Amino acid sequence: MIDQTMLPTRLVYRTYDKPEGVASAIKKMVIRGAPAIGVAAAMGVALAAVKSPARTKSGLERDLFSAASLLRSTRPTAVNLFWGIDRVLSVASSEPSPSRTREAVVAEVKQMEEEDIAVNKRLGRFGAELLEDCDTVMTQCNAGALATVGYGTALGVVRAAVEQGKMIKVLVPETRPQLQGSRLTAFELKTDHIDCTILPDTAVGHLMALGRVDKVLVGADRITRDSYVFNKIGTYQVAALAKRHSIPFYPAAPYSSIDMSRTHDQIRIEDRPYDEVVKIRGRRIAPKGVPVANPAFDATPPELVTGIITDRGLVKRPLVAGLKAMIS
Amino acid sequence: MIDQTMLPTRLVYRTYDKPEGVASAIKKMVIRGAPAIGVAAAMGVALAAVKSPARTKSGLERDLFSAASLLRSTRPTAVNLFWGIDRVLSVASSEPSPSRTREAVVAEVKQMEEEDIAVNKRLGRFGAELLEDCDTVMTQCNAGALATVGYGTALGVVRAAVEQGKMIKVLVPETRPQLQGSRLTAFELKTDHIDCTILPDTAVGHLMALGRVDKVLVGADRITRDSYVFNKIGTYQVAALAKRHSIPFYPAAPYSSIDMSRTHDQIRIEDRPYDEVVKIRGRRIAPKGVPVANPAFDATPPELVTGIITDRGLVKRPLVAGLKAMIS
Repeated sequence: MIDQTMLPTRLVYRTYDKPEGVASAIKKMVIRGAPAIGVAAAMGVALAAVKSPARTKSGLERDLFSAASLLRSTRPTAVNLFWGIDRVLSVASSEPSPSRTREAVVAEVKQMEEEDIAVNKRLGRFGAELLEDCDTVMTQCNAGALATVGYGTALGVVRAAVEQGKMIKVLVPETRPQLQGSRLTAFELKTDHIDCTILPDTAVGHLMALGRVDKVLVGADRITRDSYVFNKIGTYQVAALAKRHSIPFYPAAPYSSIDMSRTHDQIRIEDRPYDEVVKIRGRRIAPKGVPVANPAFDATPPELVTGIITDRGLVKRPLVAGLKAMIS
Repeated sequence: MIDQTMLPTRLVYRTYDKPEGVASAIKKMVIRGAPAIGVAAAMGVALAAVKSPARTKSGLERDLFSAASLLRSTRPTAVNLFWGIDRVLSVASSEPSPSRTREAVVAEVKQMEEEDIAVNKRLGRFGAELLEDCDTVMTQCNAGALATVGYGTALGVVRAAVEQGKMIKVLVPETRPQLQGSRLTAFELKTDHIDCTILPDTAVGHLMALGRVDKVLVGADRITRDSYVFNKIGTYQVAALAKRHSIPFYPAAPYSSIDMSRTHDQIRIEDRPYDEVVKIRGRRIAPKGVPVANPAFDATPPELVTGIITDRGLVKRPLVAGLKAMIS
């Protein structure tokens, strides 16, 4: 996998041969983005299957559960992580022998990898219908190829619209503290020759007030039954400001990001480390001894969401009923 | 003056003996904050008076106008810069001889320096009445001692409340791109042993949604006749989010920040350099070749403002009438 902590100045690939390595990569955000960590965690479990010396099915399952437990502990908010792990464990449990289990698990993660790109392309096509020629789209964080196996969710919508021949400009808030906007989204869009402009997170409202934003497209780490959208910190305020300026706000996420088993008050928002805020690329930017708040995600309530773009189509308002209808 | 670009890691003092040096310091934000640059620009003109070799009044005035013109070109948005320069020029014009002019100008800038602290303390006392014991105040940028000659405007209100024995906590958004929140406000508050917590600019809305913010206090670079508040980029969105969460929002500014001669559409918002966004402390954080938007200020409309704290008292709603009454 690409080490996303090194972008955009260095393009470094990392290889892991143990689930512990994958777990650490997810925790340190070497890899991030809900769909990407879902598939990476599944691969972590698959690695455990391949590397396990167990000769019995129960011994192998013990090793898989142990890897799954470690991988589950890395990041609490995105649902795809748990979905990816559970999907592999479910395949494993249905096979009788250790060797068949290993084969099935490896086949399953390969399929998940392919599926993710297909899902994003499908989602992209649904979303692209919402974009008009010459639209300026604001995004938040990185919901692109780097956040998925490839193509992207929010950026997948942009890519699909561009493939349809539409001129799309993208406004990219840098997304402190981890700067996924300036480091990753701008890097992806520049590579694809899509017009983009970076802005400090403080300029979001001002640019909206100037009439410079036509639509907002973001990813989603988890969408709960009551239609709250959990996504990178800052998404809620972008959505609230979009509402104030009557700008449509669309989260774009695969079906696997929808969690019909929980409501928003049951979701734990991860607190990230102190150093992410007080240091940037190793340079200290805050006095020592002052505490920080560093929540990694926030929740956008359904009243701020115009619609949810998924690989099964657009969920329209009222969202709670729309989600229910789509799932059933 | 303290070189504010070096804080909080290094405390470096700079001395200038020519108006060109002062102008460059203002432009590069070695010194910043509307009241501070107002007094600094006035001192720049005073330096021109003292250093000018002119033996005639008209020769001296030419040198003063030339320095004033240079200093006026440094930053367009804060009104105090122009106010400070005009005040010194006005004193200079009323004196008959070069030597009397030099004396009068130096005396005037010394008085401005003393006045600024007195103004902030008065403003602080008016504002402190609005704060309750155990309030958590969110601010934006730095409107503290470093933004003024001393004591501060928004932070002056906090200091006055603390001096009255109230327990006040301050939430400090880091305020990209220049990080005046984490670098300067947190530094000041820590030095004064006032409880503060730094947050990324992306977490403002989330913390408000969690009910963690009781009041918002910010500075102001210019308040126009139609009661728009120009202040550091990000202020508008903090105000809009405060409104959404029914949190009182108060700009605090000296009387000299009020510009009754202009409406908001007549104010030029400064665009700051590209490097402020793509580099932090010399380290590149964005891919090369991607443009940035870097507006230094934004405008908060009167409907988001609960009241304006000045050294002449609190301007209540309706603000336009309140400003007019206070000025007349």
